[in-house]
Amino acid sequence: MAVYTEIGTRELSAFIEDYDVGALLSSKGIAEGIENSNYLIHTEQANFILTLYEKRVDPGDLPFFLSLMHHLADKGVSCPVPIYDKSGTDLRTLAGRPAAMVSFLEGMSVRRPKVKHCALLGQTMAGLHLAGLDFGMSRVNALSVNGWGELLAQSRGHADDIRPGLAKEMASEFEYLKANWPNDLPTGIVHADLFPDNVFFIGDTLSGLIDFYFACTDQLAYDIAICLNAWCFEEDHEFNVTKARALLNGYRQVRKLEPREIAALPLLARGAALRFLLTRVYDWVNTPSDALVRPKNPMEYVTKLRFHRSVKSAGEYGIDL
Amino acid sequence: MAVYTEIGTRELSAFIEDYDVGALLSSKGIAEGIENSNYLIHTEQANFILTLYEKRVDPGDLPFFLSLMHHLADKGVSCPVPIYDKSGTDLRTLAGRPAAMVSFLEGMSVRRPKVKHCALLGQTMAGLHLAGLDFGMSRVNALSVNGWGELLAQSRGHADDIRPGLAKEMASEFEYLKANWPNDLPTGIVHADLFPDNVFFIGDTLSGLIDFYFACTDQLAYDIAICLNAWCFEEDHEFNVTKARALLNGYRQVRKLEPREIAALPLLARGAALRFLLTRVYDWVNTPSDALVRPKNPMEYVTKLRFHRSVKSAGEYGIDL
Repeated sequence: MAVYTEIGTRELSAFIEDYDVGALLSSKGIAEGIENSNYLIHTEQANFILTLYEKRVDPGDLPFFLSLMHHLADKGVSCPVPIYDKSGTDLRTLAGRPAAMVSFLEGMSVRRPKVKHCALLGQTMAGLHLAGLDFGMSRVNALSVNGWGELLAQSRGHADDIRPGLAKEMASEFEYLKANWPNDLPTGIVHADLFPDNVFFIGDTLSGLIDFYFACTDQLAYDIAICLNAWCFEEDHEFNVTKARALLNGYRQVRKLEPREIAALPLLARGAALRFLLTRVYDWVNTPSDALVRPKNPMEYVTKLRFHRSVKSAGEYGIDL
Repeated sequence: MAVYTEIGTRELSAFIEDYDVGALLSSKGIAEGIENSNYLIHTEQANFILTLYEKRVDPGDLPFFLSLMHHLADKGVSCPVPIYDKSGTDLRTLAGRPAAMVSFLEGMSVRRPKVKHCALLGQTMAGLHLAGLDFGMSRVNALSVNGWGELLAQSRGHADDIRPGLAKEMASEFEYLKANWPNDLPTGIVHADLFPDNVFFIGDTLSGLIDFYFACTDQLAYDIAICLNAWCFEEDHEFNVTKARALLNGYRQVRKLEPREIAALPLLARGAALRFLLTRVYDWVNTPSDALVRPKNPMEYVTKLRFHRSVKSAGEYGIDL
């Protein structure tokens, strides 16, 4: 949960008046997202989400994120759509922070995804990848292999406080991945954070994707690798191959996977596990004990990383080779 | 802010299906209230607030609170109205906790009330007091003078860590108030927590009152005394007599104040200041440093208490005697 910035009612009312959405009727800080402050706004016209971008988001990236949401929505991907104010701007300032209002996306995330959710996710992710192919902007993925060295340097000194030997394991994994990371796979826009929190369902329908604030340009299969980590392990961190098969088959119903993408999946999945392990170790070490957001235990991703390291080929993910 | 209990989507969907409100479309944990978990629920029919009652609320009190909201709404007081499920029940269980869904009240609280807000509050509070006169249930105010001795005993040992001399000041104030507290003023239902957080406005209209979970049976003028503390001091804790006058005159436009109620106001205001000082000291001392809710600084209420102690008569609150 996170609401970092409080907004005065008069300030908010004046802000909303700049949009063609009717008068402001209510505003509730909501416990969604951990990077920004989010408000559910109700006006005479509809519900909206108002986001104030806090310090972890680079303001220079915001035009990319907002343009991407417009582009994806135009292509039929169900996602929040930024609202333009009366002057035609979608990126504004409120309470001293960059701010944007987006359409309200119905649906709820599932805490424990079932096989059917994984299948729907695969289909929708592939649709997202196709829709992004002709998006005109790009953004480097600072949290891919080229960024891990710095993350490792920032956290390795404390990693052994979490689990003895963890620093060495992360370092050797990083060296291996850096030496073997592919760079010739089909590339485009990836969401890069498609955790269950960011995927909404209504009943058995996937109603949309949210939180595009890690989206970037990267090898498309890396997005799949993130989802294998985020959707296909059980609560005890055991890999569920039925869910992985559903996710991958769902994906391939919409976008064909090239053989080299399939072959790279185990390595990409190791990389995705290391990426979340590194940021979780960093957050674990650097989050003050009185912070509003409690850091997630990094050890979950050690288990996942070791699993992917044991995988000999993508066939073990249930994919039909 | 507070969302303590997380609810699974399937569990929530099943819960909502027991009401005649259409299918569940979305649910957001909201940062409202500090005692309970609150969710803004959107169904095919409307927005609602779903509250899960956490440990600070006595489940035995819930029928009183919910019946009171029904009663007040029937009498024209704008407040959330509990929704009955298909079996005719408004108090249910969800995620192991007592739970109730209420209608969504439009409007926003003001952080810095202006004079006009105080006038509207006075009018609405008086309307609440009149509407409660024929409510058939009663509830003892455990946080009035009879409860302060226990609160004092729980916190006095640590009060001097906050400010040297605070324990003694609270104890002598309590002794004085206990000896002089009136018990013959007009009595009825009081809200007992009418802070700006709990009063919603849309533009220049007071749209309603929320959070009746401290409501109880007490001397009506005590509710006014709480509001003098909560609405009529500036950020630097200076008393604003213009706001107090507006509040009191607004009240008297709707309900006549008896001379003995007016005469008792300075003493009641001291009591209200002590009541919030005591609970804030208690929370300050007893809130773990990693809690989601940060305790409010108690010293604000020391300043307010000292101000009311200096008041010679209710005329100093701007009331026309």
